[in-house]
Amino acid sequence: MANIPYKIYLSENEMPQFWMNLQAYLPKKLDPMLDPKTGRPVTEEGLRAVFTDEAVRQELNTTDKLIEIPQPILDFYRMYRPSPVVRAYNLEKMLDTPAELYYKFEGTNTSGSHKLNSAVPQVYYAREQGLTNVTTETGAGQWGTALAMATGYYGLGLKVFMVKSSAEQKPHRKAVMETYGGTVIPSPSDTTAVGRKILQEHPGTGGSLGCAISEAVEVALNQEGTRYLLGSVLNHVLLHQSVIGLEAKAALDKYNITPDVVIGCTGGGSNFGGLIAPYMADRLEGKNNIRFVAVEPASCPTLTRGRFAYDYGDTGRMTPLMKMYTLGSGFIPSSNHAGGLRYHGMNPIISQLRHDGLVDAVAYEQTRVFRAAKIFCKSEGNLPAPESNHALCAAMDEAIRCKETGEKKKILFCLTGTGFFDMPAYMLYNSGKMTDSIPTDEELEQGFATLPEINL
Amino acid sequence: MANIPYKIYLSENEMPQFWMNLQAYLPKKLDPMLDPKTGRPVTEEGLRAVFTDEAVRQELNTTDKLIEIPQPILDFYRMYRPSPVVRAYNLEKMLDTPAELYYKFEGTNTSGSHKLNSAVPQVYYAREQGLTNVTTETGAGQWGTALAMATGYYGLGLKVFMVKSSAEQKPHRKAVMETYGGTVIPSPSDTTAVGRKILQEHPGTGGSLGCAISEAVEVALNQEGTRYLLGSVLNHVLLHQSVIGLEAKAALDKYNITPDVVIGCTGGGSNFGGLIAPYMADRLEGKNNIRFVAVEPASCPTLTRGRFAYDYGDTGRMTPLMKMYTLGSGFIPSSNHAGGLRYHGMNPIISQLRHDGLVDAVAYEQTRVFRAAKIFCKSEGNLPAPESNHALCAAMDEAIRCKETGEKKKILFCLTGTGFFDMPAYMLYNSGKMTDSIPTDEELEQGFATLPEINL
Repeated sequence: MANIPYKIYLSENEMPQFWMNLQAYLPKKLDPMLDPKTGRPVTEEGLRAVFTDEAVRQELNTTDKLIEIPQPILDFYRMYRPSPVVRAYNLEKMLDTPAELYYKFEGTNTSGSHKLNSAVPQVYYAREQGLTNVTTETGAGQWGTALAMATGYYGLGLKVFMVKSSAEQKPHRKAVMETYGGTVIPSPSDTTAVGRKILQEHPGTGGSLGCAISEAVEVALNQEGTRYLLGSVLNHVLLHQSVIGLEAKAALDKYNITPDVVIGCTGGGSNFGGLIAPYMADRLEGKNNIRFVAVEPASCPTLTRGRFAYDYGDTGRMTPLMKMYTLGSGFIPSSNHAGGLRYHGMNPIISQLRHDGLVDAVAYEQTRVFRAAKIFCKSEGNLPAPESNHALCAAMDEAIRCKETGEKKKILFCLTGTGFFDMPAYMLYNSGKMTDSIPTDEELEQGFATLPEINL
Repeated sequence: MANIPYKIYLSENEMPQFWMNLQAYLPKKLDPMLDPKTGRPVTEEGLRAVFTDEAVRQELNTTDKLIEIPQPILDFYRMYRPSPVVRAYNLEKMLDTPAELYYKFEGTNTSGSHKLNSAVPQVYYAREQGLTNVTTETGAGQWGTALAMATGYYGLGLKVFMVKSSAEQKPHRKAVMETYGGTVIPSPSDTTAVGRKILQEHPGTGGSLGCAISEAVEVALNQEGTRYLLGSVLNHVLLHQSVIGLEAKAALDKYNITPDVVIGCTGGGSNFGGLIAPYMADRLEGKNNIRFVAVEPASCPTLTRGRFAYDYGDTGRMTPLMKMYTLGSGFIPSSNHAGGLRYHGMNPIISQLRHDGLVDAVAYEQTRVFRAAKIFCKSEGNLPAPESNHALCAAMDEAIRCKETGEKKKILFCLTGTGFFDMPAYMLYNSGKMTDSIPTDEELEQGFATLPEINL
């Protein structure tokens, strides 16, 4: 077998031509999304008021295992993809582990993360539908930046509701979005009814993804030629993100490598769902016995301490109800520097797989993942986003266990993005002043109390 | 001929194993560096007080055309190299030009620029020599970040004197260096004699590369086990940066592409010298007729309005004298957002080539290069460093001229780094408040008045 290089790149014609629809591989169909007003399963038509037509079709597509990527999207993908699979040789050496560590690095594009993979098709479909404007929310700022790049390229207007605490931590993110022509509004804001309501009930709140989603949805519903684009949680987002896993598998297959463990961080589930897609599809067909590990922040422990129940996707209770792991749409996570992981719910496919025992989940405190990140920085010359630090910390722990047991496990994880825009978090960690905040059982109960009645 | 992909990557075993020493290709030897005290040619021994032994050997090596890259350096290079040559298809479409635009993108590593290419060997050589600490200056912050990554990896101490105006514009750059274990001091500072002198003479100055160099050299001379590492200007830096050009040429050669024009921005000359190395070597041997264009800021017009003369490399007049294009070591350029280009001098090889008519030079105002950058951002999905904007603006102008003449020129330029840490500059440009500042002839004369007497 050929030596494994530091970075495995696919050539352009080895890039995936199809997305993989994990939903169609599930042994039984997901519980349906429910209309928040009627409590009955949503229709395509109902969803089209908020989302683009094609996103809706993809969201509800339970039959097509592979969906062709349109050529104009491939043309954009080729500007920044394929992304490399990196063999972390120097980290292995530093940890003195017999394990092999591989990471799929999604941070080499200007948005700095994997989010661009779904922003491009979503904006493309909006343009094809003749829309003129799109709205969205952003937590860490990665999704908003990705959308700004896509709307800048395809020529659509963009309004971004940015979680206030993130907007304050990351003024430069805002500047990038504005450079690409986007408008950025810290959320909760007084520009929407739901924003004004939240501000009244929680004055001084730093906001949350849930709040910001409600504001963006409200604008999409009320402004002509406008739809809402979501960067995580939904099934069509996972569909687009399957390029991560498809590229990773194609790259590793070249060297006959099948991972023993596949690890990703989880906020809404987009990178994790995309990373595991082809491996999980094989697993569901009995072709491998890979362990899949979702890593979340202890401050927002959806998969490890949440309930598997119907819930709203947003704080304002405007979205359809989804069956998923959730902390309750009323749960407001404590401030955490992995803004992209501060979400009360979880993608339904990931939730179902977790419920069926096919996905493991662990929760890490932020000081612990930053400690791991600093080791990673120095040995691999790469400074990751706080979200990514969760996955790499779990991967490093696995590698350290291998040192104890002597196992030569092959570990694959997703490094979703760079930390270039997260330096205030690193500055806080470097100063020794970063703290951890884990919700008490009582605080979780308060969140669960906001679950809708349908679960009773 | 095969279709040209969006990004041309070399495989790991196609990566250069040797650096190219452009100095050894020159038809006649460079004028010697002079000792600032005696006025006589420097000796290896004299330089060793400041620089590492190997850097000195390479600096004065006028005979070896190729110099082997040690394996431990290749091991680091492989973590972040090869960098891609990107065919800017979408920019071509946007400009509606028959020209072909290619850019070598050096911004995919965490330091965000090409500077890492020389930081790695310089720190490696310091460690091999048994040194414990290194010092340096940094302007835009790219060189300091690169050195922090290299010292973090090889385990050496690092003190960075950062041009004060840059340090204020870029607190996050500072945080990255500190995350890797470096110490950052805004310059001029009161920690050195030369810093205190400059502060006294120019209270409130934003500093310059020249000042910061003097401070770092002073520390290297006075602290045991410590040497000074320089990120540009010197010949051994250009040697290391030749990986840029060697990779670019190897990638383009695969598709039988020889550029008609090769363009780079110039501060001290490092990326430009590295980019042109193999093409200029061929040119000097009569094998091509490429036009080489150096692009500098109009606020610091070394090659376009400077003198070809002996001068100090630093404001404090501590370095050897080099024969180069210079504005005088006493010239303090106006504030400019391309911090990496605010240097009074220029690498001696580039200077000689310019003097011999083998390199063209143009100067651009900063508002103009930012205007070009915004077009580039939207069409190529890539947000470059202000320094890089100078090269891309010149490349775009060339492509626009091709539209007028119908020429299908092949244009290669270096996109040295990302603008992630330069968002204050973009914010200023977006606000419409960025201004230009071009030195008057009288201001230039004041700088020339500081040239040393040896030129008389």
